[in-house]
Amino acid sequence: MTIIVGMGRWLPDARGRLAVAAMELYAERGFEQTTVAEIAARAGLTERTFFRHFSDKREVLFAGGDLLQEAIVSAVQAAPQSAAPIDAMAAGLDAAAAFLEEGGDFPRKRQAIISANPELQERELIKLAGYGVAIAQALRERGVGDPTASLTAEAGIAVFRVAFERWTSASEPAQLAELMHHSLTELRAVVGAVAA
Amino acid sequence: MTIIVGMGRWLPDARGRLAVAAMELYAERGFEQTTVAEIAARAGLTERTFFRHFSDKREVLFAGGDLLQEAIVSAVQAAPQSAAPIDAMAAGLDAAAAFLEEGGDFPRKRQAIISANPELQERELIKLAGYGVAIAQALRERGVGDPTASLTAEAGIAVFRVAFERWTSASEPAQLAELMHHSLTELRAVVGAVAA
Repeated sequence: MTIIVGMGRWLPDARGRLAVAAMELYAERGFEQTTVAEIAARAGLTERTFFRHFSDKREVLFAGGDLLQEAIVSAVQAAPQSAAPIDAMAAGLDAAAAFLEEGGDFPRKRQAIISANPELQERELIKLAGYGVAIAQALRERGVGDPTASLTAEAGIAVFRVAFERWTSASEPAQLAELMHHSLTELRAVVGAVAA
Repeated sequence: MTIIVGMGRWLPDARGRLAVAAMELYAERGFEQTTVAEIAARAGLTERTFFRHFSDKREVLFAGGDLLQEAIVSAVQAAPQSAAPIDAMAAGLDAAAAFLEEGGDFPRKRQAIISANPELQERELIKLAGYGVAIAQALRERGVGDPTASLTAEAGIAVFRVAFERWTSASEPAQLAELMHHSLTELRAVVGAVAA
């Protein structure tokens, strides 16, 4: 199964089994109607094991976010020192795309669950805002001043959000990295289109 | 007092007095330590009157957000049909600046309270995301397709956030409208700075 292959790279062993079980149950019954006891039972593990890996059932959906943020920030930091801020940001977006595409079906399934629940949507917004703060900080450490650092990070998050939304809602399979590039090109066209 | 003059335009009579009392108490004691009973007492009104105007003490800080969103969306809708999406968005940003500058000291005081409380920061993020959704919708109604509508709205929110943050943290008085224009120009420079 793609989801297991994909998630296996992120979440080995017990953690991965718990996550797969949780995602199945969230999709079948809804997030709110699923209990930790049910997730543990489906994974053939105990509740105690669940809580060794996740603080609560919401954390199953958001634990990967820290790894995603780390992947983006590392790529921004690793960009050549000569790279313009937006190029460093674009390297971060490529890293995000690679990370998410490794997740197989997981990010799409996860998105469907989040879209159905306002509380989860709020948590997602807060995570995204956190990425923006972390990226701006990584840019400042590269010597980028403000407001350039903040604006570059916010622009990157805007590109990410739009591309990710297109990716998860696409009926045809699409490459996320390509959608990110399209979105950045589109953003450039959009903000360049002002009468002088 | 500037705050009363400013807020009076938004919040007349009992509502305005309650808001002023709440803001004073939030600043003196902190948001969490302030009760509705104390706000009502400071305003010389009853708790019942408070609840006729606000659903809870958090609402004092966020009620104006709906008016701000309305001001932005109306300006986007009212832009000439020939205006490019980003020009319509810029008209919305000008409307936001005018609205917030009418508030005198209120927006800055409010921001200080929100910055001190993670729960309020989350609420603020959710409000901002809501503005983005409403602006994108207003652009679609002008005939702008996706992803242009979403990207323009997200870019506008990015410009707004950065300009607003500079405005509220500025030691010297600054014009918000001017900071918005600077931020948009800066965003244009930032995303245009990619090597072709």
